[in-house]
Amino acid sequence: MLNASRSLDRIFAPKSIVVVGASNDPRRIGGRPLRYLRDHGFDGDVYGVNPKYDEVQGRPCLPDIASLPDGIDLAVLMLASAHVIDAVRACGAKGIAGCVVTAAGFAEAGPEGRVRQEELARVAAECGVRLIGPNTIGFRNHNTAVYATFGTDIDSGVRPGNVAVVAQSGGLGGYLGAAQLRDRGVGTRWMIDTGNEADIDCAECVEFLSREPGISVIGLIIEGCRDSTLLLESIATARHRGIPVVVLKIGRSEAGAQSVQLHTGALSGQDAVWDAALAAAGAIRARDEAHFIDLVRILDMPKKPAGSNLGIVTLSGGVATVLLDAAERSDIAVPPVGPPPPDLKARLPLVGFSNPLDASGQMANTPDGLEPLIDYMLGQDSVDVVVVWLAYALLSDVLGPVMAEGVTNAALRSDKPVIVCGMATPELTEQLIKDGVALTPYPTTTVEVLADCLRQPLPQEPLRTEFAPAAVGEEQIVTGSEAEALLPGVPFAQQYVVADREAAGAVLHTVEAPAVFKADVPGLAHKSDIGLVRLGIQSRAEAEDAYEALQLALEKAGLAGEILAQRQYAGLELFVGASRDAVFGPTITLGLGGIFVEVFEDTVTLLAPCSRDNALEAMRRLKGWPLLEGVRGRKPVNLEAFAALVETVSRLVAETPEIAGVDLNPVIATANAVVAVDVVVKKTR
Amino acid sequence: MLNASRSLDRIFAPKSIVVVGASNDPRRIGGRPLRYLRDHGFDGDVYGVNPKYDEVQGRPCLPDIASLPDGIDLAVLMLASAHVIDAVRACGAKGIAGCVVTAAGFAEAGPEGRVRQEELARVAAECGVRLIGPNTIGFRNHNTAVYATFGTDIDSGVRPGNVAVVAQSGGLGGYLGAAQLRDRGVGTRWMIDTGNEADIDCAECVEFLSREPGISVIGLIIEGCRDSTLLLESIATARHRGIPVVVLKIGRSEAGAQSVQLHTGALSGQDAVWDAALAAAGAIRARDEAHFIDLVRILDMPKKPAGSNLGIVTLSGGVATVLLDAAERSDIAVPPVGPPPPDLKARLPLVGFSNPLDASGQMANTPDGLEPLIDYMLGQDSVDVVVVWLAYALLSDVLGPVMAEGVTNAALRSDKPVIVCGMATPELTEQLIKDGVALTPYPTTTVEVLADCLRQPLPQEPLRTEFAPAAVGEEQIVTGSEAEALLPGVPFAQQYVVADREAAGAVLHTVEAPAVFKADVPGLAHKSDIGLVRLGIQSRAEAEDAYEALQLALEKAGLAGEILAQRQYAGLELFVGASRDAVFGPTITLGLGGIFVEVFEDTVTLLAPCSRDNALEAMRRLKGWPLLEGVRGRKPVNLEAFAALVETVSRLVAETPEIAGVDLNPVIATANAVVAVDVVVKKTR
Repeated sequence: MLNASRSLDRIFAPKSIVVVGASNDPRRIGGRPLRYLRDHGFDGDVYGVNPKYDEVQGRPCLPDIASLPDGIDLAVLMLASAHVIDAVRACGAKGIAGCVVTAAGFAEAGPEGRVRQEELARVAAECGVRLIGPNTIGFRNHNTAVYATFGTDIDSGVRPGNVAVVAQSGGLGGYLGAAQLRDRGVGTRWMIDTGNEADIDCAECVEFLSREPGISVIGLIIEGCRDSTLLLESIATARHRGIPVVVLKIGRSEAGAQSVQLHTGALSGQDAVWDAALAAAGAIRARDEAHFIDLVRILDMPKKPAGSNLGIVTLSGGVATVLLDAAERSDIAVPPVGPPPPDLKARLPLVGFSNPLDASGQMANTPDGLEPLIDYMLGQDSVDVVVVWLAYALLSDVLGPVMAEGVTNAALRSDKPVIVCGMATPELTEQLIKDGVALTPYPTTTVEVLADCLRQPLPQEPLRTEFAPAAVGEEQIVTGSEAEALLPGVPFAQQYVVADREAAGAVLHTVEAPAVFKADVPGLAHKSDIGLVRLGIQSRAEAEDAYEALQLALEKAGLAGEILAQRQYAGLELFVGASRDAVFGPTITLGLGGIFVEVFEDTVTLLAPCSRDNALEAMRRLKGWPLLEGVRGRKPVNLEAFAALVETVSRLVAETPEIAGVDLNPVIATANAVVAVDVVVKKTR
Repeated sequence: MLNASRSLDRIFAPKSIVVVGASNDPRRIGGRPLRYLRDHGFDGDVYGVNPKYDEVQGRPCLPDIASLPDGIDLAVLMLASAHVIDAVRACGAKGIAGCVVTAAGFAEAGPEGRVRQEELARVAAECGVRLIGPNTIGFRNHNTAVYATFGTDIDSGVRPGNVAVVAQSGGLGGYLGAAQLRDRGVGTRWMIDTGNEADIDCAECVEFLSREPGISVIGLIIEGCRDSTLLLESIATARHRGIPVVVLKIGRSEAGAQSVQLHTGALSGQDAVWDAALAAAGAIRARDEAHFIDLVRILDMPKKPAGSNLGIVTLSGGVATVLLDAAERSDIAVPPVGPPPPDLKARLPLVGFSNPLDASGQMANTPDGLEPLIDYMLGQDSVDVVVVWLAYALLSDVLGPVMAEGVTNAALRSDKPVIVCGMATPELTEQLIKDGVALTPYPTTTVEVLADCLRQPLPQEPLRTEFAPAAVGEEQIVTGSEAEALLPGVPFAQQYVVADREAAGAVLHTVEAPAVFKADVPGLAHKSDIGLVRLGIQSRAEAEDAYEALQLALEKAGLAGEILAQRQYAGLELFVGASRDAVFGPTITLGLGGIFVEVFEDTVTLLAPCSRDNALEAMRRLKGWPLLEGVRGRKPVNLEAFAALVETVSRLVAETPEIAGVDLNPVIATANAVVAVDVVVKKTR
């Protein structure tokens, strides 16, 4: 996989481009690619194909693809869907490496379109042509002026830079990945709309981009994914190459349609699984569009903080409080700072030299005092990144230029990043950007987003890459010994079949009281809902009563089943569940058990298989972690034993195609051991 | 209270203004008020006071306040703190109604400043002068051009409008309340910085502003509050007058300093109490600065939605998904719509006439088709508000003007609000604003903020206005019967003193097994932490053992106490706590009890006293509500009994000055009753 995308070099860094279906009208959709290539100064060869012209927008124009010279790198097909497949075949015959297929009317358009897309992919593979699309606005590299796109956001201007955006939606890609970032002072080098992904998918693009020197951050706007392993590998590869990856997942609500027969399906949901998978790959997931933009802006800063200690310089005590609050809630340290140089202290007597540093109203009269204050803060060994609150000072024609120069002079002398929070004139905004200083509007968001960036996860080691595919077949719920047999290595509570009233009384010689009696009905989960579980049985008489009552309950419900007795374990009720996600395959979910699974949904989902260390780390993320760890003098539960159980179940679901889902609920955990006292397995037969 | 602020009319709507300490240099701090008054065309009389000039910036200038004509309405004191008190006295002698005191060096500057501020307030009251400040940048009304301020944000432009902002921090008030809103297309009519609030506080300002015709929304930026009852009343009054109030509370982290001896102190914290108080008054609390701006922008829209049903018109299927997701998560309905008029369907065959309405790529060729589509959506009876996703179309010189006109034409014909989500040129942005259409950048945030606005609470009826002030004195922890005696009406578990080993065995004749034995040590909370509670006692032998064990534990801990026996109740463990907040007085907190209070912090705090209905509504907001309501076929607990208990405790803490705090934990709730099995009271003696 890692080198697969080398074949994309000719496509994404073409020396020659042909626009097929080129229009002479630079405003029309078919005329835009040629206009963009010309206006932005693409320096390779450019051709048009259109039987109507000999020349199109000043470029040589051929009547058909066959008439083109051999060995052109990239073709942009501005053709209706009906003509695309023939054109791709013709491109293959001329040795063209790749085609951008802009036409809609493929998989997004229903069953007929899906068939057409499959044929398109087949033809392209046969004739050795790689595809972007169909149903794409194309891609652009603002730095090399490769505009294989008709995206209209370009008309309102571009800002070259170091961000790379890959989007499955051209609309959101162009809006967030280019226009919004541009207006917020962030330059986008690449914007690739992968469209329907008949061939090249976003994983391949991420891997390609991660090899490009100087990319600051990759932004990925994704709705779904064909090969989740490749996606996660490509993100992890980018992270290993030092490039942060920010992912905006579109379409979160699909989880609603999941099975409700097992807890796990609904709990792990699609959203929790995306969380788990993206975190495992080392990506930062954006909460929403605003967060995406904010994250990309901070990660695009040319200097990277060496640690997470924040220095604050502010013009106002009120905002110092706001920034401190945000830092505290985000777990960012605002460390103490050393004494100021005496001459600086003498020059600026009203300044409070601490962290936050309150530059005070004195800056209004001595705006050139800001520069040494920022120097002082950047010079602190304890500080890794500096936020400077300037409110609207950089809108002032008197204070603005002096203070902006103070900030940039100090920032340029340091290898630590500087973020200015406030507003600035367009000119001063550009001055800050040019010198690598980010400008953000809101104190709280600035600190929170900075914290998100400082905490970006590393790819899990090893990254889960292999698992058995799900078996195909009818799904069936199994319980009791049949379920236990599917889960070797899981510590189950010993159960005894109670054949009749007399045996019920006698079983207390074997099972330590208090005992639990339950009716095991093959295929029935949630027994306690219909009165098929009796707890706290202490005596022979109670045991006999319980037996009778359960038999009655079975009859009443019209069910057949065995009565089982087991010891009633005392301890903390935990939950372990496994599920199979349509995109990411086997997953494991752990949390507090019993009734709390449903009510508090205090669970963490991981990709399966997972290691014991993964499980331990996940346990610490539970809100109920203090209960596991031992709160108020209680003993901790056996954390290693629970982690081992999670690992075992995760491995079983990952290795066993027939296991579609598992609920162990509750698992009783004590200081010594864990024991699963109830099990339901969804099995594919 | 409601009419108290009438006396502010002369101050906030002055016919004459004097600037004391006026500078002839319009750029200097002392020269700015005169410049702003002139530049923005204030049409009343304006004077300066400065012994150096006869005329200042073209206005008559007197050597001192005594030389001014009588009956000037407002004085802006641009004086150092040492001269302020004499100036206020002189203003009083000339019948000036109010003074804006800009000088710092009062309560914010330490004990000496605090004394000076108290004297200032006393002098002002004596001579009948009302004060804004000290330590304020002043106030402005952009519509009447009353600029009693030196705020430098005005230099970069103002946008008159209908928003009123009151801030205790001039820096944040000017930044968020004026400059940021202005740049986001929202006009601010009022910005009042109340500074140190030696006299006029933000509550009085809110009440004053709520009487001003045409105010769309009041934004309040607040750090603390002197009289919380007045604050809540003023907010509730504004809400009853139909004006939404958005509150940004600065300085959230103070809760950390609270007592940890009772759960309640830390749980209710300052932040939860502000939540409770603001919700009771009917305010919307902004999460952070960005949220404040977003809320104010949506609430400033001239048309108000009659309900919360959202109509969506979009240019892209991807963003339709994003908007639908956000609506689902925010509990906003996106209702079905009726069939389109046949001629519209014929004219725009590619448009999907549903909700969301996907206007499709067809808009690129027929941008004038947008107007009838918005007409169609606005015409749906099922739709109350319409969001139109236009991405960057309004940046396009071809599509932009046509589409913007389509939006505004349709919006002007309807009484429903229209929000455009996307980007626009400055010209088209102004066109949208002029015609009452809001422009927002991000789909998800737009829907979420719209949902917050649609769900703004109504003031609680009746609003809590009276409670006994806390007693002053030493605080003491009391437990057992002493604590019970302070809480008449609370259903406590019956307890029996067990005097010796023999009595321990015998008590099971009286107390139904299983029993609980505990050692009651006066003043000791959290008994179970040090082994002073024994559960599940079934037999005489167990009772005797428990007695011995508890005696041993007492000895080991070096404590003296009685051994008590009580029935071990089975049921749901709940929590009721009461506390006294420094700002808002008595509060009540309810939630899940036992160990879960600490671990899950699943609690809701209300102002005390509260009604049973308040308590029931709060119970429904618990994450653990399904446990109270009865999950998976379990019976619900007696909700009315629990609500009655909450009401009782809330009334007791509100009426009893000596009760500083209460922990009832756990309260055992069953289908029949609730019983408090352990109690700790913090008492002021």
